Amino acid sequence: MAKLSIPAGTRDFGPEVVRKRNYILATIRKTFELYGFQPLETPAMENTSTLLGKYGEEGDRLIFKVLDNGDILGRAQQAKDNRELSLLLCEKSLKYDLTIPFARYVVMNHGKLVLPFKRYQIQPVWRGDKPQRGRYREFYQCDADVVGSNSLVNEVELLKIYDTVLTDLGMKGYQLKINNRKVLAGLAELVGRTDLMIDITIAIDKLDKIGDNGVREELAQRGLQPAEIDTVMDFIAVQGSNEEKLERLSALLANSETGLKGVEELRYVLNGKLATFNSEPLIDLTLARGLNYYTGMIVEVKAPPGVNMGSIGGGGRYDDLTGLFGLPGISGVGVSFGVDRIYDVLEELQLFPAAAQQSTQVIFFHPGEARLPEVFKYVTQVRERGIVTELFTEDIKQDKQYKYAEKRGIPFIAYVEDNAPDTIFIKNIPLKQRFTIKPEELADFAF
Amino acid sequence: MAKLSIPAGTRDFGPEVVRKRNYILATIRKTFELYGFQPLETPAMENTSTLLGKYGEEGDRLIFKVLDNGDILGRAQQAKDNRELSLLLCEKSLKYDLTIPFARYVVMNHGKLVLPFKRYQIQPVWRGDKPQRGRYREFYQCDADVVGSNSLVNEVELLKIYDTVLTDLGMKGYQLKINNRKVLAGLAELVGRTDLMIDITIAIDKLDKIGDNGVREELAQRGLQPAEIDTVMDFIAVQGSNEEKLERLSALLANSETGLKGVEELRYVLNGKLATFNSEPLIDLTLARGLNYYTGMIVEVKAPPGVNMGSIGGGGRYDDLTGLFGLPGISGVGVSFGVDRIYDVLEELQLFPAAAQQSTQVIFFHPGEARLPEVFKYVTQVRERGIVTELFTEDIKQDKQYKYAEKRGIPFIAYVEDNAPDTIFIKNIPLKQRFTIKPEELADFAF
Repeated sequence: MAKLSIPAGTRDFGPEVVRKRNYILATIRKTFELYGFQPLETPAMENTSTLLGKYGEEGDRLIFKVLDNGDILGRAQQAKDNRELSLLLCEKSLKYDLTIPFARYVVMNHGKLVLPFKRYQIQPVWRGDKPQRGRYREFYQCDADVVGSNSLVNEVELLKIYDTVLTDLGMKGYQLKINNRKVLAGLAELVGRTDLMIDITIAIDKLDKIGDNGVREELAQRGLQPAEIDTVMDFIAVQGSNEEKLERLSALLANSETGLKGVEELRYVLNGKLATFNSEPLIDLTLARGLNYYTGMIVEVKAPPGVNMGSIGGGGRYDDLTGLFGLPGISGVGVSFGVDRIYDVLEELQLFPAAAQQSTQVIFFHPGEARLPEVFKYVTQVRERGIVTELFTEDIKQDKQYKYAEKRGIPFIAYVEDNAPDTIFIKNIPLKQRFTIKPEELADFAF
Repeated sequence: MAKLSIPAGTRDFGPEVVRKRNYILATIRKTFELYGFQPLETPAMENTSTLLGKYGEEGDRLIFKVLDNGDILGRAQQAKDNRELSLLLCEKSLKYDLTIPFARYVVMNHGKLVLPFKRYQIQPVWRGDKPQRGRYREFYQCDADVVGSNSLVNEVELLKIYDTVLTDLGMKGYQLKINNRKVLAGLAELVGRTDLMIDITIAIDKLDKIGDNGVREELAQRGLQPAEIDTVMDFIAVQGSNEEKLERLSALLANSETGLKGVEELRYVLNGKLATFNSEPLIDLTLARGLNYYTGMIVEVKAPPGVNMGSIGGGGRYDDLTGLFGLPGISGVGVSFGVDRIYDVLEELQLFPAAAQQSTQVIFFHPGEARLPEVFKYVTQVRERGIVTELFTEDIKQDKQYKYAEKRGIPFIAYVEDNAPDTIFIKNIPLKQRFTIKPEELADFAF
């Protein structure tokens, strides 16, 4: 028999990992709910036609396609290349993100939905990327979006959600970096190269990784003249507090209506009149985010300093996502949490609380069939108090029982002995305490 | 643009449905946890080779296969038929149930696992069945299994789990039907046709649907002689209480060692010394369950009388599931809940509690930018009490705001008015109550 394995880039999550992941997901879900976001779940599979063309050429290639039933051989013989073959054989594909299925849902349910519609969605997505450390082919996304509202209050609420969740997770020192696509559009106007706006944003987004000179080179490669490059570099070099940056931007973008609109939006979101934050959002003019559907505020969350990790979340405002499916004029704004990376940060900083790692609280041993009904009764009684309780089913030598309890990390052991009727022995293993109680005392025993 | 749709047999779950489903899943999860079962999650995709041959020929055909990347055209040209083509092109497939991936996990982690291993798993699975009412291509399974223990105490605990969950869900009058595969093996011995044991069980399993004569016909078609058929029909006609049935079975199976072992196992599980049930499990000699890996107790859960619904759960003991992957000698026993059907039963009997359908508790309206910071502060204050609160972001005519709140079913509306400083107006819509409070009273207001 061939050695067993699971597909590259996928993972089994054992009990300890599931518990910790559920702690993260529950913290996020609780906050989404608290803010009035409503849960949505869409199928793992979408029609291939729904997904194609929404993530660029590279994305099309990375979408996992699901083989049709029926006469696929006949169809396969008509294909001229790999791409055509995949399209002939696969009507369905695994979803690649939660945003496009959400847009598809909004369009399909447009008549019934009450707008603004605030939804959250916590589900796995699949991408055929080359697997590597921290990059998986199946991973969870956690998104919250509002569609059908142009109000910037949504932006403030979504930033508050980041602040609340990351504070609840104990992640002190995380950073919210924000920018606005209209400011970047203003920069392109300022440079005089609105045709190259995407190229400019792609290049400056890499400043962290490739430095000033790297960005200059990339801008040159993408067709900017030296004077234009200087303008870009001066722009992204603007320093100071949020207020100082906004002042400077107002001056620089004085001739760009779009740019000034962006500055005004940033000012509204950051003015501090609405919300206060544990970690103040900071303007980062190099922040661009790759997805081209963003049109307003963009945001990215950085792990606390000292943790070597890319962004642990991001989002922004898009003006016309459902336009992709023929329903224009519905704007939206959303944020996303990167669960796998948050997991790694909490692990590295040892921030998982003990409760997120605790499973069984008490295990009962029994000395054989004769006393089993009595012990089963005790187990049931403790469970009825809501305390997670196991009955060690095997009637074997006691050291195996202890080993099981130890390996499982169960703090309390309880048992009866053949020569001691009406007596329950209890040990608290971590505290090295022993108790001998009567059955009627079990109801109040503090496990 | 083509009309948008989702793949046949899949579903979007909107907010109300997700909330109700989560209520069911949370009830099941809580009980699994209470009994010391530990969570496991496996990938959506498994290697195709892991799944093939585990669900019969029909199952192989219904497994959704995922197209490989790379040069599929070259490979496609070598295929001689549809089946071969799918195997040449699809290294990975979507999981078809949770049991085989669990067995695969146990084998892959055998050295590290502490046995007995009690795991639960709540995840979607995919099957290419023809979609019809109540049958989907993507649906959740909720399984709890114990592997590495031969103790019948596990059977009792798993029956208790059904009893606890269904009682918690308010489903009075559900029925636990149990039988034992060894008893059915004993029947085959009694008939003198151990070679046709599977055929006999398949036929008698249909008694509910096709009646006595139908079963007789099917047994004849499957090769039984008239006298042999009489023996089968007499056997499944055994009536009476559990105790009476067990007495009669002991006599009928007196010459079958396996049969008597099955009777003894049933007696142990049903003797009432260990556990008491809200709805007593009843022996059903026609219960066979399709899956051939069962070897001991089998169980099926029927919805309360009056609800037209097949089984809402089932399970049993298997002696050698991991043997499929080269690790023999690990027995297991498990149960499964049918979430979709439980959902339909709770809906039909109107058993979903109000709390499972409630989302936002309070919505605040604001009369424009000037008062917005004040209202935002109130919203934050109520949220900090853990009360689900929305801020209606749009500054529009008040009747639209009311309509939004009404359609969303939000019970409390709160707002300020331009001509009333330091005053919050609150309405309880369902109770038609109005309140006028000072801001300092908000902290104690009973939403």
